[in-house]
Parts: sequence; C-alpha cells; structure tokens
Amino acid sequence: MSAETKFSPVEGFEPPALGEPYLLTPGPLTTAYAVKQAMLRDWGSWDGDFRAMTADMRRRLLALTGDTKGEFDCVPMQGSGSFCVEAMLGSFVPKDGKVLVLANGAYGLRAAQTMQYLGRAYTLIDKGDYLPPRGAEVAAALDADPAITHVIAIHCETSSGILNPVAEISEAVYAKGRKLLVDSMSAFGAIPLDVNEIRYEAMVSSANKCIEGVPGFGFVIAKKTELEAAKGRSHSLSLDVHAQWATLEKTGQWRFTPPTHVVAAFLEALKMHEAEGGVAGRGARYTKNRDVMVAGMRELGFETLLLDHWLSPIIVTFFCPAHENFAFDRFYGLMKDKGFIIYPGKLTVVESFRVGCIGRMDEHVMRRVVEAARESLAEMNVPDAAPPRTALEERAKLAA
Amino acid sequence: MSAETKFSPVEGFEPPALGEPYLLTPGPLTTAYAVKQAMLRDWGSWDGDFRAMTADMRRRLLALTGDTKGEFDCVPMQGSGSFCVEAMLGSFVPKDGKVLVLANGAYGLRAAQTMQYLGRAYTLIDKGDYLPPRGAEVAAALDADPAITHVIAIHCETSSGILNPVAEISEAVYAKGRKLLVDSMSAFGAIPLDVNEIRYEAMVSSANKCIEGVPGFGFVIAKKTELEAAKGRSHSLSLDVHAQWATLEKTGQWRFTPPTHVVAAFLEALKMHEAEGGVAGRGARYTKNRDVMVAGMRELGFETLLLDHWLSPIIVTFFCPAHENFAFDRFYGLMKDKGFIIYPGKLTVVESFRVGCIGRMDEHVMRRVVEAARESLAEMNVPDAAPPRTALEERAKLAA
Ligand SMILES: Cc1ncc(COP(=O)(O)O)c(C=O)c1O
Ligand SMILES: Cc1ncc(COP(=O)(O)O)c(C=O)c1O
Repeated sequence: MSAETKFSPVEGFEPPALGEPYLLTPGPLTTAYAVKQAMLRDWGSWDGDFRAMTADMRRRLLALTGDTKGEFDCVPMQGSGSFCVEAMLGSFVPKDGKVLVLANGAYGLRAAQTMQYLGRAYTLIDKGDYLPPRGAEVAAALDADPAITHVIAIHCETSSGILNPVAEISEAVYAKGRKLLVDSMSAFGAIPLDVNEIRYEAMVSSANKCIEGVPGFGFVIAKKTELEAAKGRSHSLSLDVHAQWATLEKTGQWRFTPPTHVVAAFLEALKMHEAEGGVAGRGARYTKNRDVMVAGMRELGFETLLLDHWLSPIIVTFFCPAHENFAFDRFYGLMKDKGFIIYPGKLTVVESFRVGCIGRMDEHVMRRVVEAARESLAEMNVPDAAPPRTALEERAKLAA
Repeated sequence: MSAETKFSPVEGFEPPALGEPYLLTPGPLTTAYAVKQAMLRDWGSWDGDFRAMTADMRRRLLALTGDTKGEFDCVPMQGSGSFCVEAMLGSFVPKDGKVLVLANGAYGLRAAQTMQYLGRAYTLIDKGDYLPPRGAEVAAALDADPAITHVIAIHCETSSGILNPVAEISEAVYAKGRKLLVDSMSAFGAIPLDVNEIRYEAMVSSANKCIEGVPGFGFVIAKKTELEAAKGRSHSLSLDVHAQWATLEKTGQWRFTPPTHVVAAFLEALKMHEAEGGVAGRGARYTKNRDVMVAGMRELGFETLLLDHWLSPIIVTFFCPAHENFAFDRFYGLMKDKGFIIYPGKLTVVESFRVGCIGRMDEHVMRRVVEAARESLAEMNVPDAAPPRTALEERAKLAA
C-alpha cells in the first residue's frame, strides 16, 4: 500500500447534498447526487422507455466482465443481494448436485444456510472469522468427495474485508473438473472478475455496492449454457433465474414489477462508473481511499485485523482499542456527530469495527474520517488505540 | 357509479414534474413529486435513523388494517409483490397443508404456479378471465375436500380489474373451519380490508400500488400467532417471513439490505395517504377517477368488460373497438404522445386494454385521458369504439 496521497479529486465529487453523514459502510453507501436525481420521475414498466433502460443496463454490466464472445448474459433480479445468491444456487445447482461452500465469514455461512433451505447437498470448509480458503485445500476437498459438482466462493468476504484468492480457487475447481459460482457482491465493479482471466459459471452482485447505485435489486451474470440448463430447477418462482432470463429475452421486460427508480439510479451510476475509467478507475479510487484511511488509522494506533496482503479496497476491519475508556457505541455516536457512519464488526473472537472504502468518496473524505477518529478518541479519553494482545495473537495466525 | 363530476381538486396535486406521461397502469404508477424527493439522500441501513423509519412504516401500515388489539404484525419484504405472495404461501401453509386457490385471472393463476414451485398440495377453482369466485362454491369445494387447510383469494384481480367478493369468501372459509390468505396487492390502502370486518390470517401488498410509493418491496400483514407458527416452514431463506419478522423484532433491522430509498419514499407516501383521509379518502378519489373516466369512455362508445357491480376503482378493462382501423399498438402510441400511458389487456378470449385509476391523479386528469382517447380515435379514423358482438356475448355471462 502506498501511504503517499497526491491531491487528485475525482471530478464531480460533492459532499452529501442534504448534509447527511457519509456512509463508511459496505452498502447502502453514499451515492452521487446525480444518481439519486435520476429517481425524480416515474416510468411504466411495460413501456418501451423502461425496456430500453433495462437492455442498456444489462449490456453495460456484461461489458464489465470482459465477455467479448457473447458467452454470458446478465439477469437482474428483484430483492437484495442475498436473494441473488439464493437464486444462483437454486438455479445452477441441479437438485442432485452437491456444493462445496468456502466460508470465512458471515456471507460464506449464509450461502451454506441457503443450501440448507434448498434441501440440496453441500459440504462446508469453514475457515473461521477471516482465514482465506486456499487453492490446495479446495483441491484436496474435491479429491476427497467426488459427489461435489459446484464450489461457491465469496470474492470479498465483507464481514472481515478479506479479498479471497478467487483466481487460485478457480484454478483448483476447474483442474478437478468442477464448476465455480462466485458471490462477488461487494467486489464486482471495483475488483476485476474478467471471464478471460478467471473461469466461473456464474456470479452475483447488487446495485448498492461498487457500482454505487441505491439498493433494491441485484443481478446474476452467467454462462448462457448454464442459464439454459437452469430451466425447471429453481425451488422458487420469484428466484427462478431461468424464467427471469427467458422473459427478458422474449419481451425485454422483467417478469414481475421491477424497481424502476432504483434501476434508473443504477443506470446513472453505471455511466459514472464508465466515466471514472470502469473497473480499473473505480478500483484505483477505492485503493487510494483504503491506503489513506488505513495509514491514518495506524498512525492513531489502530491495527487492522488483516495483514496488508489480504486487505481489500472495499472495507477494512480494525480491532477495537484495548483501553478501558473505549466503547464502540460511544465511538459510533461521536463519529456520526462528525458526519461519518462507521460499521460494527462481525468477528466472533475479538471486538472490532469496520470502515468502508466504497461509495462516492475520495481520499479527502478519508482524511477527514481519520481526523474524526482522532477527535473521537480524544473525547473518549482514549490516549492509545492499540488493540489487546489477544487480537494481535489472533492476527499472527494469518502469517503462519 | 355516479356520472356527476364536481370540481374538487385534491390539494397538493401537480403534473408529473419532468413532463413524463401519466401512468394509467396498475403500478408502478404516477407518484407525488414529494415522494420521489424523499429519495434524495442516503441512509445507513444499520443506523438508528433508518431503523426508526422502518418502525414508523410498520406501525402506519398496521393501522390501516384497523387492528386495535395488537393481534397482527407487519413484515416488509424485499422484492416485488409476487415475492410477497410466495413468501406468504411458503411461510403460512404448513408443508403438509393444502391450499384452495381461487383464480379468475393472471394473479390467481400465479398463486397456483407458486404452489407448484413449493411442491405443496393445492387445488384450483379457475373461473376463467374474470368471473368471480362466490362464497357458495368455495363452501362446496371445502366440503368436498377436507384436506384443504387454507384458501387464497385475490382481492382485486388486476388482470381484469374485478373486485372479488372477499367478505363473502372469508365467511365461507371460516364457516368451514379453514384459514384465509389474501393477495390484496392492488387493493390495499384504497379498499378496506379491516380485520374487524373481514377475517383473514395474512395479506400482502406492495409499495407501488394504492399507497402510491415507488416499487422495490412489499409487505405481509399477518396474525402474530401465524407468524410464530411459521418458524422453520419456509422453502426459501430470502422469503422466510418468520425469520424476517424475528430479526425486525430483535434488532429493528431488516435481515438483508433494505431498499432504503424506496422505504423513504414509501414513508412519505404513507403520510400523504393519511393526509388524504386514509383508506376512505384514497378510495373516494380512485372511485371518482373511475366514475369520470368510465363515463367518458362510454360516451365515446367504449364498453367495459365488467358490469358496474364488479368494477373496481383500481383499474378498468375495456374491449378494443371492433372497427378495422383500430390497432392497440397505434392507440398506445397516440395516447403516450398525449401524455398518457395505458396498459395492454390480459384477456384470453377477446382483445382488450386497461386504464388504471390509481396513482397521483384526480378527476381532472381522467377527463384529459378521455379527451386524449377521443382524439386518438379520430387520428386513427375509428368513428365508433363499439366492441365486437362476441365481446358483449362474453360479458353477458356475468349477468347470468
Ligand atoms: C459478499 C456479500 N454477499 C452477500 C451479501 C448480502 O447482500 P444483501 O445484504 O444485499 O442481501 C453481502 C452484503 O453486504 C455481501 O457483502
Ligand atoms: C393482485 C396482484 N397480485 C400480484 C401482483 C404481482 O406483483 P408484482 O408485479 O409486484 O410482482 C400484482 C401486480 O400487479 C397484482 O395486481
């Protein structure tokens, strides 16, 4: 990570219009005013104008995957991101298939829980709070269980912020003749998931993550052959990816009422994403956000859960200071008073909190976040933000 | 229906802000500008501000049911209305239950299709395109099949616009010791569904219907005893009403990312709904809209599919004129050019189209709709809007 921070504001940045706090969270996040303004009119969902918007959105999303051969298609789906994960599992895993779930946090475990609801076979590699699942252990698990047909990996496990080694996992999966599904909810649009670089059958993400739209739907990007094979497989009418795809292809319409305004906002967000330089441009800004913020927080004595190698430019977990005057709720309130909403941690072993790097914010905002943290510590009479020894012992596992 | 149209504009009405067409559709519909303006900021979904909004929304929705005894609760659910219907069926019908589906149009049939996905037992009374299911035949069906545990009825079957006799159906259901579920998607908020007047276990509706919000989520209102009993029943993680309810009760948060902006818009819409006089006030405006519009269209020679007794104040189906110069696509385009988006019909037997009465529109708008229809007919050289004889023969079935 570079600690150097050059003054280079991204054009079009503006503070939240109504003076609301910046959201340093994994989404919903701070969006551009223009994105929200795109919601100031109404559309008929059957009308040609809205159908054109849907088509434009699908095309733009597909382009982000680097699919130049027309092998993939994009299927938007109403609901939150979890609905898309469930739709993907229910549509692409045959009823007699078996899934290896790679978990190192809440979202991996949620994928396993989804399989339980589906009543389809699965097995779990649970690495605990944050340790990454590695290619070699995936290969070993696939060797050990020939019944496994699919593997699901979490791209950025947002509960710790770790960027999982998806390329390495993909290689192991296809070397063993199995299929990969990716939950790229919090990574897609900022971290490459190019179909020419990383092999997978399908992935999901949602409107309110790195594309910087407002929440209300997600999308599945999948091989057309998989979309065709998904016919009749879904456990759910609403979450049937094949049926949604077939209707879109036939009529240009979503099967059921689409979240028209959220789609309009997302289309504006996609245009701004392109203007910023696409995945590379967006990823560069978030990386800068992270570098500036992490460097500043470390100066205050905070320590990250993860070693630099595993830190994503999406969200960063910090240990709570060991000092007895520190209390997360108080810290949250003080930060909010200063215009920044941070996020509680999700670790089971030690106390932590998270700071997001995504959303309509740049390094200048991140410097103010650090400044706000400094002031908040002072107000709480916490002279030292160092974590408890147990936290650092925990982290040492990552180096091993 | 009264054909008399007094000049009494509802306060606060304004034409669509960006000059977009009025939506004479069953939703998404034309919403107030203030409703859309409520989306011009971002909220953290974990933050107390948004939790308070969710609580306020749930309380306001519950109040519309007349539940003064605290017997019911309201559970919002991400996704479109169909997601809520599926969530209701999957959560309240036990795995060994059996549902009698009362269908007279697309939405009744969709409920049956949902049961098929669920793999739970059901039987269907299919009345065709629009004939209403009556209490007596429901009672007979329940007598004939003791395995039936639940009945699902469509309050306003939006595909024809018929207002089904839910009170009569409810009486039959409970007289036979069974339970009623209601799809009140397009009726709730404008047509009473008071728990003190009509007995039911659960009902669903969505944000973009008679409350006049923008699309992006729906809600289930159910007896608390049913919500408790729903634990562990759902076929779907995302659509598990009990799990959503339990999380809301425990944390004040939605289980997964909520459509924050759509919720903010809906809350504004609920306040405007209250200011208009709640269900009675909203219903009165829609009734006036319908009366003015239907009277005007009949003057042009158009005929409604339904007899007056069955006409809802939600949406009205008209037969397409028999005249050879009439073509729906052309008519649609001419009406859109004049600022009005109408809706295609969904009948299987005869050609039809629909005109909605719901959304941020009053009788003055409806008079302009009629004027636009008159002009469009003239431009198409259709001197007479009378339907084919077969259409009127079809309608005669309703009187029988
Ligand atoms: C990796 C990952 N998967 C799944 C989800 C679930 O998305 P949602 O909250 O929209 O259901 C999230 C949300 O942050 C996520 O980060
Ligand atoms: C009676 C009824 N049920 C269900 C639905 C489905 O709702 P959605 O299109 O939001 O899925 C509708 C939509 O118009 C409806 O009118």
